[in-house]
Amino acid sequence: MRHDHLITSKQLSREDIETVLDRAAEIDADPSAVADRHANTLLGLLFFEPSTRTKMSFETAMKRLGGDVVDMGSVESSSVKKGETLADTVRVIEGYADALVLRHPKQGAATMASEYVDVPLLNAGDGAGHHPTQTLLDLYTIRENAGLDDLTVGIMGDLKYGRTVHSLAHALTNFDVRQHFVSPESLQLPREVVYDLHQADDGAGIREHDSLEEVLPSLDVLYVTRIQRERFPDEQEYQKVAGEYQIGPEDLEAASDDLTIMHPLPRVDEIAPAIDETDHAAYFDQAHNGVPVRMALLDLFLSDDGAGGALGGDGDE
Amino acid sequence: MRHDHLITSKQLSREDIETVLDRAAEIDADPSAVADRHANTLLGLLFFEPSTRTKMSFETAMKRLGGDVVDMGSVESSSVKKGETLADTVRVIEGYADALVLRHPKQGAATMASEYVDVPLLNAGDGAGHHPTQTLLDLYTIRENAGLDDLTVGIMGDLKYGRTVHSLAHALTNFDVRQHFVSPESLQLPREVVYDLHQADDGAGIREHDSLEEVLPSLDVLYVTRIQRERFPDEQEYQKVAGEYQIGPEDLEAASDDLTIMHPLPRVDEIAPAIDETDHAAYFDQAHNGVPVRMALLDLFLSDDGAGGALGGDGDE
Amino acid sequence: MRHDHLITSKQLSREDIETVLDRAAEIDADPSAVADRHANTLLGLLFFEPSTRTKMSFETAMKRLGGDVVDMGSVESSSVKKGETLADTVRVIEGYADALVLRHPKQGAATMASEYVDVPLLNAGDGAGHHPTQTLLDLYTIRENAGLDDLTVGIMGDLKYGRTVHSLAHALTNFDVRQHFVSPESLQLPREVVYDLHQADDGAGIREHDSLEEVLPSLDVLYVTRIQRERFPDEQEYQKVAGEYQIGPEDLEAASDDLTIMHPLPRVDEIAPAIDETDHAAYFDQAHNGVPVRMALLDLFLSDDGAGGALGGDGDE
Repeated sequence: MRHDHLITSKQLSREDIETVLDRAAEIDADPSAVADRHANTLLGLLFFEPSTRTKMSFETAMKRLGGDVVDMGSVESSSVKKGETLADTVRVIEGYADALVLRHPKQGAATMASEYVDVPLLNAGDGAGHHPTQTLLDLYTIRENAGLDDLTVGIMGDLKYGRTVHSLAHALTNFDVRQHFVSPESLQLPREVVYDLHQADDGAGIREHDSLEEVLPSLDVLYVTRIQRERFPDEQEYQKVAGEYQIGPEDLEAASDDLTIMHPLPRVDEIAPAIDETDHAAYFDQAHNGVPVRMALLDLFLSDDGAGGALGGDGDE
Repeated sequence: MRHDHLITSKQLSREDIETVLDRAAEIDADPSAVADRHANTLLGLLFFEPSTRTKMSFETAMKRLGGDVVDMGSVESSSVKKGETLADTVRVIEGYADALVLRHPKQGAATMASEYVDVPLLNAGDGAGHHPTQTLLDLYTIRENAGLDDLTVGIMGDLKYGRTVHSLAHALTNFDVRQHFVSPESLQLPREVVYDLHQADDGAGIREHDSLEEVLPSLDVLYVTRIQRERFPDEQEYQKVAGEYQIGPEDLEAASDDLTIMHPLPRVDEIAPAIDETDHAAYFDQAHNGVPVRMALLDLFLSDDGAGGALGGDGDE
Repeated sequence: MRHDHLITSKQLSREDIETVLDRAAEIDADPSAVADRHANTLLGLLFFEPSTRTKMSFETAMKRLGGDVVDMGSVESSSVKKGETLADTVRVIEGYADALVLRHPKQGAATMASEYVDVPLLNAGDGAGHHPTQTLLDLYTIRENAGLDDLTVGIMGDLKYGRTVHSLAHALTNFDVRQHFVSPESLQLPREVVYDLHQADDGAGIREHDSLEEVLPSLDVLYVTRIQRERFPDEQEYQKVAGEYQIGPEDLEAASDDLTIMHPLPRVDEIAPAIDETDHAAYFDQAHNGVPVRMALLDLFLSDDGAGGALGGDGDE
């Protein structure tokens, strides 16, 4: 079947994911080949929450394909203030654009909104819900740096609240990947996410740890996330926990020379700046990969053969 | 004569209006024919007040004609904060753009600003003053759905403060239209507007009512507006009044099957969502019509034969 | 040598300046010749402080060259709020754009940021530091109106805090220009700036005054700046000082018929509106000149022969 909208990475089969990543790699290798491919195309940006890099990289992606954007602007300057429902807002803005990108603070907002529009809608984050384009650019970065077969990945930091992490972990169950989750006990993966991962992967590849030390030597990829100050009732407690899950050059002595370090950014001090200059650091490339991956997605969803047409499969989404 | 600027729909003759609507219909039928017509053209956006749909649809219109926009951004981030006059601001920005769109909270701002610039200036709302592009898209929607001859239109809700309503009512006096105004007594049309309409139309077509019931069966078009909470000193009073001027499916039993329901949006709860799915609902189309109508206006004002050249006539503006 | 970035006008030799101004004049004479010259080029806008005209004219310049922009938006809506460093922000955004424009409240920010990026970075103001594109458009305006040889320039107003003034004064030492500085004693040029100008120009052309009267008749150009209310502890003191350094039509009786009056804008009441209509007034042209000058700079920095390649010279930046 075809996908009309992109709501969650869970809707994508392994084959779908590979279609996106292959297209992104093609585009990355020769962006000029698609520089005018979607001329006269407008992408509507509906960001109900602030975002720098997701919004800018979607905008860049559309413009690198020859198109342009129309931006709703901030909620403060919009009709939302006057009490308009999301269903009404998206139905108005779909009249201006050929596709929509939506970020919204409420989980489920993207699914709901997609039911009201005929143009493709791409979810750019719905609260604690999904953020599939982040997952796809993470997968692309992993594949470019370490491949996606016979791989050992460590995911460290705030595993409790991070939708990025849950979504990536789930997507990785499509591939031959062992996953180690490293966090303080208070920020462990929620039990329902662990259950979900075991369901998806027979539990074979999933392990949880409270220290990086024991798993670092075995890792091909280390994915670090930010531990948010606001999750802790007490500054001292935060400092103690955050300090234990920072990576500095000295920590890397036990790591493989080929270790790839990723981070969805922005970072605060989870990764020491001294690592930026090493071959381990892939986080800026990772941010930049948002462009070819989102170009690939837009191209697939905007192509003449129908919305998301090339994202074939036999699922029932 | 030619129009240099678009300040009010009152400056437009019936012939001018038909020129705009005809051009909009042409563009609507085949937008690709004009997709590069105004390449290398920049439209300056000066919004001194928030706006979602007017701003986005002007931006969309310019981009659908192959051009682009430069946006002053919000007043908070602009030189206005430093005490710059509107006359200075528009004279600076006219150096960047081929035409300007201005929204400003003060009535008369567009007229004043237009005296300082040589490029076409289009009024996108000046406080309690005018909003001519809204009127034109309303007329376009009425014409597409019900024609503009031998027509009965009901206009309901807040008729006291709504510039949209005053402007549309005046424009309709150019056509063979009977107008019924339905509102609570406290939100009736201001007497000077009624006087003005009688002057324009010999009073023949104008009637006021405090209930929809008596006129609904005769209507071809029902134009609903939002009753603003902030107009009422007291929440209870608001609830009582607002409740009486809401439309639900049960209210439509007495209506013609061909009744067209319009609303300038955003709505709060003036029109029940159940009506969205019926053939009566034209309000989303109405919002979308902002694009072809503004494309037509931009095209007419930016064309080589002079600013607003094709909006000929023998009036004296 | 070549310039990788544009941080300060001090890095530019007289030859460099003339290269920019000549290119701007060429573009100004026939903008259509470059209307598609940088198609498919994206300029990243990073404005950590509000700005209307600098930002809009950079955006206009890029679009008039056929390119487009991606805008970080306001700091409030960006990752900066989450504690991201400037070094990280510019490294992420360089992945989206072919060149960057940075405005930042901290002096030295542009230099620091430029060390982290490979694409050209143009400083659009760094606190009390530099604002080289303003200086170049000022020089362009002076050259267009009065030439840059055997010239007498008066600079009046707030000479203490204005980076615009310091930067322009320094750049003028490259040319055969006598400079008269007119200000209240409390807003005189800082001693280190005077020292710096004497170093650059053997002090030959620099004079300071507390009244315009004595120098006005000799001036070819009068550059007026805004005296900021917030510099004064006391409103009465401000009114007294500001009133003395305002220019009205009656002040111009003693001036040359060819006197050119400039102002970086926004003005409050330093220049009476009655002067706008005279041939003396060059300040709106000056604002508009931001476009061809920034087009010239972008063109030089984005051209195939390397970043800022055509800004050759044998200095060492």
